[in-house]
Amino acid sequence: MEQLKRKIREHGSVLSEQVLKVDAFLNHQVDPQLMRQIGQEFARRFRDQEIDKVITLETSGIAPALMTALELDVPLVFARKHRSLTLTDDLLTARVYSFTKQVESTVAISASHLAAGERILIVDDFLANGQAALGLAAIVRQAGARLVGIGIVIEKSFQPGRRALEEQGYRVESLARIASLAGSQVSFVE
Amino acid sequence: MEQLKRKIREHGSVLSEQVLKVDAFLNHQVDPQLMRQIGQEFARRFRDQEIDKVITLETSGIAPALMTALELDVPLVFARKHRSLTLTDDLLTARVYSFTKQVESTVAISASHLAAGERILIVDDFLANGQAALGLAAIVRQAGARLVGIGIVIEKSFQPGRRALEEQGYRVESLARIASLAGSQVSFVE
Repeated sequence: MEQLKRKIREHGSVLSEQVLKVDAFLNHQVDPQLMRQIGQEFARRFRDQEIDKVITLETSGIAPALMTALELDVPLVFARKHRSLTLTDDLLTARVYSFTKQVESTVAISASHLAAGERILIVDDFLANGQAALGLAAIVRQAGARLVGIGIVIEKSFQPGRRALEEQGYRVESLARIASLAGSQVSFVE
Repeated sequence: MEQLKRKIREHGSVLSEQVLKVDAFLNHQVDPQLMRQIGQEFARRFRDQEIDKVITLETSGIAPALMTALELDVPLVFARKHRSLTLTDDLLTARVYSFTKQVESTVAISASHLAAGERILIVDDFLANGQAALGLAAIVRQAGARLVGIGIVIEKSFQPGRRALEEQGYRVESLARIASLAGSQVSFVE
């Protein structure tokens, strides 16, 4: 997706060979027009899948996932990282390890918001090791729902996330695929 | 805002005289069409204020704030509750006490995303005691920016948040004002 790649080139900053900072337009300051374009692009790529619901993980996935759900005209559910006071329902949970933060956390979706047979699209901001998406996929399985696609805004293709997801048979669509962050340069796949 | 009140009546559930659960359409499952209507309504009410930027607090404020920013065609910034690895800039911070969770946390916005002189609109999902909005207001002051309005999706009018904000001279616009949750019933103001 060219607008996204241009935004990454112009406003992303490479903090290390592993870390791309996109706080200027995606996960701290957010560019709403870019989010709308991202939502339209995911909707275009997955429209054939008859999606019933979009799910994501708080916090940074919410903006692109909301715009995708708006475009597909289906509900969004965002998994919570902590059990909050008013989440009193039966919870579907998974343990997710963050290599970036080096902590494991429990993510949860209320069983009342994910039904057996529903066709689910995961949307998230980054794909690195795939732990977040695998955790959400485990929750989808617990619900008896069907994961029909995974939409990623920025894929770090030099990390093993895509392979891990594809090995489980999932279709992954990434809008920007980064081959390398070496030398403080962003190189895209292809 | 009638669509919102109807949604609260039909899909909200009263957990106690203090707590209204809106996990079905606002802060766990999210209704994207309702968020768009909310964004349009905030944009209508604040369009005369020449807003430069919308700010909110992760997590539940992001959806309504994003749709408001989209409608006003300005950036969104969401304050983070924890210092994350890639937030390496100078941070503007405030301490926010949550009466619901009974914990105090630090909220932060990178100084690079809030500039002196900018006209700022706060959007948040709930107003109860006003602590979150007061914390964001303190950050706006630190930046030398100007807080020109506060847009709240659901105001618990039986709690002191609105008064605290108005005493500091802020204009508060709430789309649904709840007078009482007594007897497991939602009663709106007026």
